Amino acid sequence: MAVTFPEGFLASASTAGIKPSGKPDLCLIALSPGPPDPTRQGAAIVLTRNAVVGAPVLVARHMRAAMLSGRGPAPRAVLVNSGNSNAATGDRGLRDAQETAALVARRLGVPPEAVLPSSTGVIGRPLPVGKIAEAIPALVGALASGPEADAAAARAIMTTDLVPKSAQATLDLSGHRVRIGAIAKGSGMIAPRLDSALGPPAPHATMLAFITTDAAVDAPTLQALTEPACDASFNRVSVDNHPSCSDTVAVLASGMARGPGGPVPPIRPGTPEAEAFAAALARVCLDLAEQVVRDGEGATRTFRVTVRGAASDAAAQAMARQVVDSPLVKCAIHGRDPNWGRIVTAAGNAGHPFDPADASLTIGPVEVYRAGVPIPAALANPALAQAMAAPRVELGLTVGRGPGVWWMLGCDLSADYVRINADYTT
Amino acid sequence: MAVTFPEGFLASASTAGIKPSGKPDLCLIALSPGPPDPTRQGAAIVLTRNAVVGAPVLVARHMRAAMLSGRGPAPRAVLVNSGNSNAATGDRGLRDAQETAALVARRLGVPPEAVLPSSTGVIGRPLPVGKIAEAIPALVGALASGPEADAAAARAIMTTDLVPKSAQATLDLSGHRVRIGAIAKGSGMIAPRLDSALGPPAPHATMLAFITTDAAVDAPTLQALTEPACDASFNRVSVDNHPSCSDTVAVLASGMARGPGGPVPPIRPGTPEAEAFAAALARVCLDLAEQVVRDGEGATRTFRVTVRGAASDAAAQAMARQVVDSPLVKCAIHGRDPNWGRIVTAAGNAGHPFDPADASLTIGPVEVYRAGVPIPAALANPALAQAMAAPRVELGLTVGRGPGVWWMLGCDLSADYVRINADYTT
Repeated sequence: MAVTFPEGFLASASTAGIKPSGKPDLCLIALSPGPPDPTRQGAAIVLTRNAVVGAPVLVARHMRAAMLSGRGPAPRAVLVNSGNSNAATGDRGLRDAQETAALVARRLGVPPEAVLPSSTGVIGRPLPVGKIAEAIPALVGALASGPEADAAAARAIMTTDLVPKSAQATLDLSGHRVRIGAIAKGSGMIAPRLDSALGPPAPHATMLAFITTDAAVDAPTLQALTEPACDASFNRVSVDNHPSCSDTVAVLASGMARGPGGPVPPIRPGTPEAEAFAAALARVCLDLAEQVVRDGEGATRTFRVTVRGAASDAAAQAMARQVVDSPLVKCAIHGRDPNWGRIVTAAGNAGHPFDPADASLTIGPVEVYRAGVPIPAALANPALAQAMAAPRVELGLTVGRGPGVWWMLGCDLSADYVRINADYTT
Repeated sequence: MAVTFPEGFLASASTAGIKPSGKPDLCLIALSPGPPDPTRQGAAIVLTRNAVVGAPVLVARHMRAAMLSGRGPAPRAVLVNSGNSNAATGDRGLRDAQETAALVARRLGVPPEAVLPSSTGVIGRPLPVGKIAEAIPALVGALASGPEADAAAARAIMTTDLVPKSAQATLDLSGHRVRIGAIAKGSGMIAPRLDSALGPPAPHATMLAFITTDAAVDAPTLQALTEPACDASFNRVSVDNHPSCSDTVAVLASGMARGPGGPVPPIRPGTPEAEAFAAALARVCLDLAEQVVRDGEGATRTFRVTVRGAASDAAAQAMARQVVDSPLVKCAIHGRDPNWGRIVTAAGNAGHPFDPADASLTIGPVEVYRAGVPIPAALANPALAQAMAAPRVELGLTVGRGPGVWWMLGCDLSADYVRINADYTT
């Protein structure tokens, strides 16, 4: 189960003919019909920080600003197409994004600004609005809940993904069972650095993730809970250190969870309920983020580096990013080579202090480097070869005695990555 | 001709047995014997900014500080070994670097602190001091000038390089013919970000470059002329965005150029002679830097991106680095795919403003993107296919109307790169 797992959501998919492959390329996720309730049916939108963005991202920015200031509604539906990113399409692209969203809105009986458009795929080609417009009546007509609708939605947003991605969670909020469902897609241009509408810019696909919940929560509260969840998940993964112009995470709340005592009460900021919901949302986001990395272009295995002892979390993050994005480290992971020298020197490139005297590196359970020098016996330890062959290689790097800690998740670099991306045709 | 092309230099090479391959692994470059003259025989040393550095880099830092403050001599010789980087070797590594340099100094009859040690190769293994010590007498005995000595020196510093690298220049300084000679090595961990002893930190191998000149110039002046030359050359190339712990550029001046009127006068800062020398030095450094990129691991072709119209040179540099290091762009270059979308979105990830309305991208002579949208006709232009197939692909990206300009030189990413770096054994 995924996006229709929570109460109050419907989904559908279709093949509009945007993809030359003839695979499904249109997905709609919508709240079930009913009067809007802004105190219970909030939404959250988190977007790429790339300076070059697709038209749907521009539309989403405006929707978000209006929603958070109370000038506009929270989205009640998301219209997603794959096969065309509607990016580098100029003013026409903006009109196309708005027009297709408006067509869906009319059929759903909601205001046009309550439908969030989202696109992924080829850059620089006009969105085939005619094909999409033709497909919309049947798409809206097919809206349904259940495993089939969920699976169809997850497949329709795929581009170079090999497998569909979905996640779900259930939590108890003061006696009320609340659900979260989600779908996502990768699998190239993956290094999300999602923005923040509320705080200072947070730290890097076209990575799209659409999350639904039947919790009751208003838009500002849901936005405030979603941004840290993204920072703890999507912003910690990188396939290729190339954030896309289209990265988008959207969360929709239906407010329709019910318990024995009636409808679930709205989540208030700073309460144990908010904390429990945030934790569950972060788990779902992390689950999706990990699926995206596992399915990264050409990836055969993943690796996580945890940097400890930096002067600050920001310093630890900068070091972890250097490790996870170093092609030399990625090739070493691919070759199952415990190349501690590449890992340590990658971290040394982050522009932050590194004290070899206090430094150490573990690969899985095996310490391979301590106080600035390698531990030769480690190389003969069979546990090291085992750790290097694991589906996820765990690197633990200590760089000093500071309080800063961060982890990042990446994938290996294979000859297949080159094949996939050198043979791609513009 | 290379390092012994200028008057007053000798070079030699030998096989100490550091490399398992049995290839040459020891190189010595030295001023011919004679009394030191600090006003004419200056040196310059520019080092990696990686926070994790090899023992020879630590020694070089101290030598440089002493030289620039007048507390110590300018180096009169450089002892380079390949096959072992003497990095991650702790206190022992420091002693080993100093001991081997001192052995050469004793034979040359110069103070121990006048011999600069430099090492490249495997990280984390003690330097085989015994083998080096055994080789030193013959190495010093073989010092000579001429094409054979030059070629042997260039070969002995190679690691994964496929070809030796050298460059030379001749210039006229007020009637005196002055020469510059140089050797360098790559070809992995190449993204030099060399430091500055004088100015603020400049922008990223083990890349080693050793440059000689018979110009007369003191150490502070030569250091001041060398740092901008590095910034305009080595700091503008990247093979793998992974600066090494050992990157080193050293320049030695003999002051022995002679004209009809006698010995060449010392170069004074701010004079036309200083400017002419700086320009020639920069050309030699750029020549070496380009050779290093052409021989980058797995590289089949190079590409240069020039970013114009940014708010500042620093912003243009940040954008150019994102383009040159994007694996998606590198694969597109490999596949001869004019993938303007990857190039533009890579630049958009630099964290600097990008105005699509004022943006444009040329590939070779063909404009493929203007005002935020692609130019579809460009894809059919045969000149575009020709530009993408060139040994060096030229990308010109305009991002706005600011004064900032920067270029960076990179190489394509091939399946061979993965093979070379995944099969490497620690």
